[in-house]
Amino acid sequence: MDRDAYLERLDATTGDADDLFEHFERRSVAGRTHHVLTAARHGLERGTVIVEEADAVVRGYPSVPRILVLDPGVPSFFEEDERVAIEEKLDGFNVRIADVGEPLAFTRSGYVCPYTTARAHELLALEEFFADYPEKTICAELIGPETPYTTHDYADVDTHDFRVFDVRDRESGEALPVTDRRELCAAYDFGQPRLFGLVEPSVDAVVAIRNAIEELNAAGREGVVLKSADGTALVKYTTESQHHDELAYAFSLPFDHGRDFVFSRIVRDAFQAAEFDEDDDRLRERAGDLGESILRPMVATIRDVADGEPVGERHTVRGDPDAIDALFDHLHGQSMTIDLEDDRREDGKRVVTFVKVAESSRDRIRYYLDGGTRDE
Amino acid sequence: MDRDAYLERLDATTGDADDLFEHFERRSVAGRTHHVLTAARHGLERGTVIVEEADAVVRGYPSVPRILVLDPGVPSFFEEDERVAIEEKLDGFNVRIADVGEPLAFTRSGYVCPYTTARAHELLALEEFFADYPEKTICAELIGPETPYTTHDYADVDTHDFRVFDVRDRESGEALPVTDRRELCAAYDFGQPRLFGLVEPSVDAVVAIRNAIEELNAAGREGVVLKSADGTALVKYTTESQHHDELAYAFSLPFDHGRDFVFSRIVRDAFQAAEFDEDDDRLRERAGDLGESILRPMVATIRDVADGEPVGERHTVRGDPDAIDALFDHLHGQSMTIDLEDDRREDGKRVVTFVKVAESSRDRIRYYLDGGTRDE
Repeated sequence: MDRDAYLERLDATTGDADDLFEHFERRSVAGRTHHVLTAARHGLERGTVIVEEADAVVRGYPSVPRILVLDPGVPSFFEEDERVAIEEKLDGFNVRIADVGEPLAFTRSGYVCPYTTARAHELLALEEFFADYPEKTICAELIGPETPYTTHDYADVDTHDFRVFDVRDRESGEALPVTDRRELCAAYDFGQPRLFGLVEPSVDAVVAIRNAIEELNAAGREGVVLKSADGTALVKYTTESQHHDELAYAFSLPFDHGRDFVFSRIVRDAFQAAEFDEDDDRLRERAGDLGESILRPMVATIRDVADGEPVGERHTVRGDPDAIDALFDHLHGQSMTIDLEDDRREDGKRVVTFVKVAESSRDRIRYYLDGGTRDE
Repeated sequence: MDRDAYLERLDATTGDADDLFEHFERRSVAGRTHHVLTAARHGLERGTVIVEEADAVVRGYPSVPRILVLDPGVPSFFEEDERVAIEEKLDGFNVRIADVGEPLAFTRSGYVCPYTTARAHELLALEEFFADYPEKTICAELIGPETPYTTHDYADVDTHDFRVFDVRDRESGEALPVTDRRELCAAYDFGQPRLFGLVEPSVDAVVAIRNAIEELNAAGREGVVLKSADGTALVKYTTESQHHDELAYAFSLPFDHGRDFVFSRIVRDAFQAAEFDEDDDRLRERAGDLGESILRPMVATIRDVADGEPVGERHTVRGDPDAIDALFDHLHGQSMTIDLEDDRREDGKRVVTFVKVAESSRDRIRYYLDGGTRDE
């Protein structure tokens, strides 16, 4: 691999190839060599991949910052005369689908997920799209109750589906303007997140966003991504129901996720409460929900461990038998312990229900329930 | 200083003086040289101090482990035939008072607190005690609403007082048996934490501890320390009200203490809920209290910052003018920013109300309220 040539194509903020490439990890994927950037470095996103034999670069998806108050968060983030697109943020699994010899679905961290790749081939018109736009990356969420990663229910998704929220240049990472991207996705019949509106000037977007957030919150949905109309500036803002759902998830597996999740979700909720909850009854209700979202799942998991029940994340997947096999190879390759609970056929598809065993939570809880001490 | 001689006296688990003494910090205190162990190392407690000119060693107070369930936590921690003393754990400032040329009050981390030292001279018969027991260390909590460190109210303490909960050999750290220690403290008229009982066998202590915890919780008090009758084995267990009080404190200063406090307090509360709250109404009440203890103080602090109010811990201290001066020198020496709010005389004492300014919380909240983004 000609590292100096790639250094220039990647447009990194260092001129020293060693400085950059020491953070790349080499992986072999279906006979090709993938070089994957494992953490954001020198202006490049985590999950940036070079596919050596295809001479292809797939830029990572940028980390999207978050505002904690809408006012003045929105007007201070965007230019005054910038139009702001309000799009729904979906609770799913974020992948980049790019044609690197063949279309593959890359996770945020740059792994190829064989299951998501296979589902994308079936559910999205990838061949047509990449025939027309070989240099683009499709950025999509895999959503629905039947995925190997998330289980959030959406009323219009019975099992799983994709929502394309961005189309970017594969190598430079440059995004399409919002309106162009939405038209392009419509032309290929790609599902898209809901667009609540395009508002100008940005200060006027606050009320529209607040209304969108209240509607999404009432429906138990995640939140919004706000984008400048040209697609370059992105910032996110989430609902109370999302904060509490994530806490409930984290505290159902407290020693796997509790510590990492808890503080940031509380911070989000408290700033939102300070901005939204002028009414004391509303604040009391939010506090009660917050406490329930933390305590009940953890108590339930402690009782499950006491009763010898399995502890972990339960998922169901549905797809071609080969893709399901490849998925389990992939998950085992990530050092996960998987308990298969059900494995059947429906309409020619294999449907498997499994638990990603949360060993830390199971083992720490067992230890404390046996009378183990905690040193703090 | 003859480090090899001290190494032997300290009974450290290393034979190499360098291995140990690289973790000591040298401080000058009232013309004497204090060598302070800044973290637990080689079998020695954090805050262990060598006072060079007095040729004296003051062992640190041991870190006391915690059980998360009473049953089987208590019977598994203690020997079956061991008598278990149930003593109240007080919410105060833990100091060791030792005669190292003169009686000084050492904090857990081995600093000398001049204010606590002065208050101990006035409130405890230190001269008589150390004349009789020069080789002992008095381990005490400074409690009450008027201290520079904690503000927990106790019904029988108007301003501040000491409660002696341990008497140990200054150099070896060996504790007196519980009954001997309580008699000794009574002889010098030292205040002591309440003893709920001495129970044998340890399995029978569970019910007595549960009753003590329920009584303490109803009174808004912290919890218990369980000790083997010989004073050697210690373990602690705390009340729901303490968990929630600590969360309320931490989230009143969220970017100073929130992240460090939150997970461990939730863990304590959830294991207690799993053991105590068989009734769903009780669990709902605890969850509501938990949520309120997190959300309300943080929202109140966000609103204080928005209104330009000071953010920090408010304390009142009362004592001789010299001791108050020395206290503020000490606090400034710990790099604290102090706002004086009130400074007056009452009955020959100086009474000062001040705020330890919580700069991280004030500045982070200001940043987010101004629309600053958060990258996670």
